[in-house]
This record gives sequence, structure tokens and C-alpha cells, in this order.
Amino acid sequence: MASGLTRRVRAATSAGKPVAHSPESRSFMSIAYLNGQFLPLADARISVLDRGFLFADGIYEVTAVIEGKLIDSRSHLDRLGRSASTIGLPVPLIPDAIEAVQKELVACNGLEEGLIYLQLTRGADEGRDFLPSPDLQPTLVMFVQPKRFLNAPSVKTGIAVVTTPDLRWARRDIKSVGLLAQAMAKRIAADAGAQEAWMVEDGQVTEGASSTAYIVQDGAIVTRPYSQAVLAGCTGAALTALAEEAGIAVIHRSFTVAEAQAAQEAFITSASTLCQSVVRIDGQMIGDGKPGPIAAQLRDIYVDFARRTAI
Amino acid sequence: MASGLTRRVRAATSAGKPVAHSPESRSFMSIAYLNGQFLPLADARISVLDRGFLFADGIYEVTAVIEGKLIDSRSHLDRLGRSASTIGLPVPLIPDAIEAVQKELVACNGLEEGLIYLQLTRGADEGRDFLPSPDLQPTLVMFVQPKRFLNAPSVKTGIAVVTTPDLRWARRDIKSVGLLAQAMAKRIAADAGAQEAWMVEDGQVTEGASSTAYIVQDGAIVTRPYSQAVLAGCTGAALTALAEEAGIAVIHRSFTVAEAQAAQEAFITSASTLCQSVVRIDGQMIGDGKPGPIAAQLRDIYVDFARRTAI
Repeated sequence: MASGLTRRVRAATSAGKPVAHSPESRSFMSIAYLNGQFLPLADARISVLDRGFLFADGIYEVTAVIEGKLIDSRSHLDRLGRSASTIGLPVPLIPDAIEAVQKELVACNGLEEGLIYLQLTRGADEGRDFLPSPDLQPTLVMFVQPKRFLNAPSVKTGIAVVTTPDLRWARRDIKSVGLLAQAMAKRIAADAGAQEAWMVEDGQVTEGASSTAYIVQDGAIVTRPYSQAVLAGCTGAALTALAEEAGIAVIHRSFTVAEAQAAQEAFITSASTLCQSVVRIDGQMIGDGKPGPIAAQLRDIYVDFARRTAI
Repeated sequence: MASGLTRRVRAATSAGKPVAHSPESRSFMSIAYLNGQFLPLADARISVLDRGFLFADGIYEVTAVIEGKLIDSRSHLDRLGRSASTIGLPVPLIPDAIEAVQKELVACNGLEEGLIYLQLTRGADEGRDFLPSPDLQPTLVMFVQPKRFLNAPSVKTGIAVVTTPDLRWARRDIKSVGLLAQAMAKRIAADAGAQEAWMVEDGQVTEGASSTAYIVQDGAIVTRPYSQAVLAGCTGAALTALAEEAGIAVIHRSFTVAEAQAAQEAFITSASTLCQSVVRIDGQMIGDGKPGPIAAQLRDIYVDFARRTAI
């Protein structure tokens, strides 16, 4: 089902139509969006003077795609708007227009399951100065990443997490592209054979390097309340609301690593993992070392919600 | 005096030779270096998949140029090496080769006075993942910025500073491009009519948004000792060594905003300001509100050192 825009995109790219590719291939001919144009991702280039490159003066969002549809899109676009307004960055497209672009990217890339990445920066100036010129045009880029998360092997096995000091800045509520601390935490996790890092500050877990952290105690979910110390997770917001609807209590408070290691269950949420059980924290087995029933129930509830509300 | 490389650069660019420009113009036809090539700065473009753009996974240096020569170059390249090794980033050129490129940029841009900006990132991957592919080629970009700082008006007038909470991450010893907190601080300063922001943590000044902070008490210089809480300033390291040679005591300890406001003098150092008097902090006049003699003496000593050791 190719729309007019999709046909024009296909005609305008050397691909003609998306080439055959395995969903996890990173090198398939992907079509991206950059400042009003659709073009091959490999040709999507920005100036070295872009403030996203020089100053990490930009924000981003990652939206899941299941069965060719956007999951919880408005929640992500609302957060994009909050991040943008907090740093005084204009969003050049209204939410409807962003969704239209994202739907075109899904269509012209033949994306069934995966992610749409969106990054907005303050744009490229004529030189480098901490203070931007007043008339800068923001840079808006979007591209897709095929990824199979509905039936990922980790759903059945659970994942291992390691903890590491939270090195990040004080405004983690802004989803900025200043992600070096998170990249370093992910490296520490990978080197330890783990799939995620939980960051710890003042003895309490803040969140995962790219996810929200939860434990289950006495049948209730415990997760850190929103503040400037953590990102307000979109998947987490939906999932905790669904949990309460299902009669599962949600307690918003911080927790320690020791509490997490002694918990009934532990899990994470993110757009790219949905709801994923954690079965090991710093080598310590959680419960019986298998994904727990509450996380599994919540995952099912979330996937059902995602399918019902996808656009 | 155009070297063979400079002649080839000029022949390879549409500029032919650098066009006439005022030193402060931001739009002159500037030649940049990007991954082994010299090209017009306006044509220097990187992939949106560059990890410098997506994750702020990169570092930078700014070197001053006076009378067409590099100031304190090895100190900057040593720090580049330290930043790079701390985040496990290979530097693709040896220091001699970086200096050769920078000298060519000075020559082919006809730069007499200004800055050379260098940024090194982990490079562009085939997709977006917190964990980089193991075989990535780093991105190395350099460009010049004409700037008159030897006789800047602020040398005679001094500058105003405002203080603001230090929002940055915990590894400020790494000169990373994750600079959004600094850009926000600079915006706060500019909105208050000040030229620099001093960042404050636990009641103590850490450093300026793009400079090192100093006060003078009882004829001695007070500045924060190096740690992960501040960047080890190259200009500051040279200047404090020169101060001690000149018999001016240097005390390495933290100081409060109130102490700074009550100090004999205050000043900053950076590659782009050298040594610059601060005459107002949060609206409070320092001393008699004019640049003080010790900062002026240190500036003279530093400029003399810079000229003597420039390459």
C-alpha cells in the first residue's frame, strides 16, 4: 500500500524500492528523512557545524513499530515537545506532520517491526559559538531500524544487568543526545556479559542506561518517581497505568541495589524492549533466575495495549 | 609562503585562494579538514549516524593562533590524547601530523589570529546502537575561526560573570562534546548581560562554562585543583606555572561565590581569551570594578610565553 508520497520517495531514491533484507541487517538500503527530504540513510549528512555535533545541543525520541504501526506515538511526541521547550528549541513540524513522515518511513522501508529514531538539533550555524545565531533552522532527522523485539530470545531467558555509578548531568528529564555516560555504562555492561546497566546515585538506582528500572516486592511494582534525576519513560508511563488498571499496585519510590537483588522480580521498560525481565543483577540471581510472572503479565498487557492503540 | 600541500588544497577548492574577509566574519570561505581531506567548511559534512551526532561520543580541543602560529600546541594534543584514551577512542593521527594539518589550515586560510577547532568522534556506524561496531573509523575534523583576542575591547574593560548551578556530568576532566549544560549556562549569562557563566556545585565555583576560574586573595592566585569535577585547562596550566616563576603564589583550592565577590581580583583563562579580567560577579563589583594589576601582569606574561613558544 504505497501512498503518493511513498511512490515519490521510491522514485527519488536509487533504491527504486526497498531491497530485500533481513530484519536485523544493519546495512539494508534504508530511506531516511532529513529536513524535509526523503533520501537514502547513507546519504543523510549534516554540516560539521551542526550544534548537535558540536555541542550535543539536541534531543531525540525512539518510537516502536509493531506490525507496521507506531506504538504510543503521542506520548513520545509530547515528550519531544517537553524536551524541546525546556531547552528553547522550536519543533519545526506539528505532531501530525511528524507522524505522517514516520508512517511514510514505515511504508517506504517496508518496516514491520522495529524502531523509528527521531533527532532534533538546534541546527548548523555559520561558525562555532556557545551562543547560537537567533535565526537558526533546526535539524530534524528520522530513520528506521528493523528490530525483532516481540519474540526476542531475551523474553524467555531474561537479561543480566550490572550496576555502575550514574555519571550523567543533572537534567536527565531532558532526552538530550548527550549520551556519552550512557554509552560508557553500556560498554561496562557488555564487558561484564550483561545486556543493560543500571545507574546508581547516592545508593539508589536511578534508571537503566536506555530503560526504566523496576522491582517487584510483595506483589507490588516499585519504580523511581519522576524528577530531574530520571527520564520520564513513555513505555513505563503506559505500563504502570495498565498495571494499576489490572489491580497491580505501583509504588513510586527509589530503591537500592541490595533491595533489587532481594526482590521477587526485576524488569525494565523501554520503547525497544517493551517490558523485559531482569534475572541477574551484578551476578546475583533474582528469584529463581527465570523471568517472573508479574513482568510476563505486564508485558502481555502492554503488547495488547500497543496493538490496540497503534496507528 | 604556500607549501606544496597548501597549493594542492587551494587548487582542490573552489576558493582558489582564500577570499578577502574581515577577521571576525563568520561567513568567509573557510577551508576545513575532514578525515584526510581539505575542503570548504561549508562542504564539510558527516553522516547522521556519526556517534558524535547521535551520542556526543567525541572529544575536542581549541588551540589559539597568534601571528599565524599555534599556541601551546603540545599541551592541547596531550590533553586530546588523555581524553581519547579515557573513553577508549583511537586518535588517527600522531601529534606531529595533527600539527602539520593545523599549520596547513592556518596557511591556506591566511589565519593570523584566532582559533583552530579540532573534534574527534568515534565515527559513523551502520546503524544506531549504544555499543559501537568494533571496526569504526573515527571522524576527525578541524577548522579555523578568525578571532581578535590580543586587543579585544574586554581586555581593557573586564567582563561580567554570573553564577549558575553546575549541571554537568561527573567526568568533566574529559573534554567531551556533551556541552548542552555549558551552552545553557552561556545563555543564562548572555541573558543577564554577562560574558561568562561560573558554574557552582556544593557552594563552590567549579569553573567557567568555557574557561577556568581564578580569584586573587592577599596577592595570591586561588584556583580549583584538578579532579574529575573540572577540566584541566591548558592555558591555566601554563599560566599558573608562569605565575609561580614570577613569584606569584598559586593556591589550589576551591572557593565560594562570596569569596570571589570579596576578592582583590578575579579572572579567567582559556585558549580563546588567554587571561581575561572579571570585574563583576552576579552584579557585584570586584575591587574597584576595573581589571586588576595581577591579572594584567599574568596576561602579559602569558602572551610573552605564547609568542616565544608558538610554532
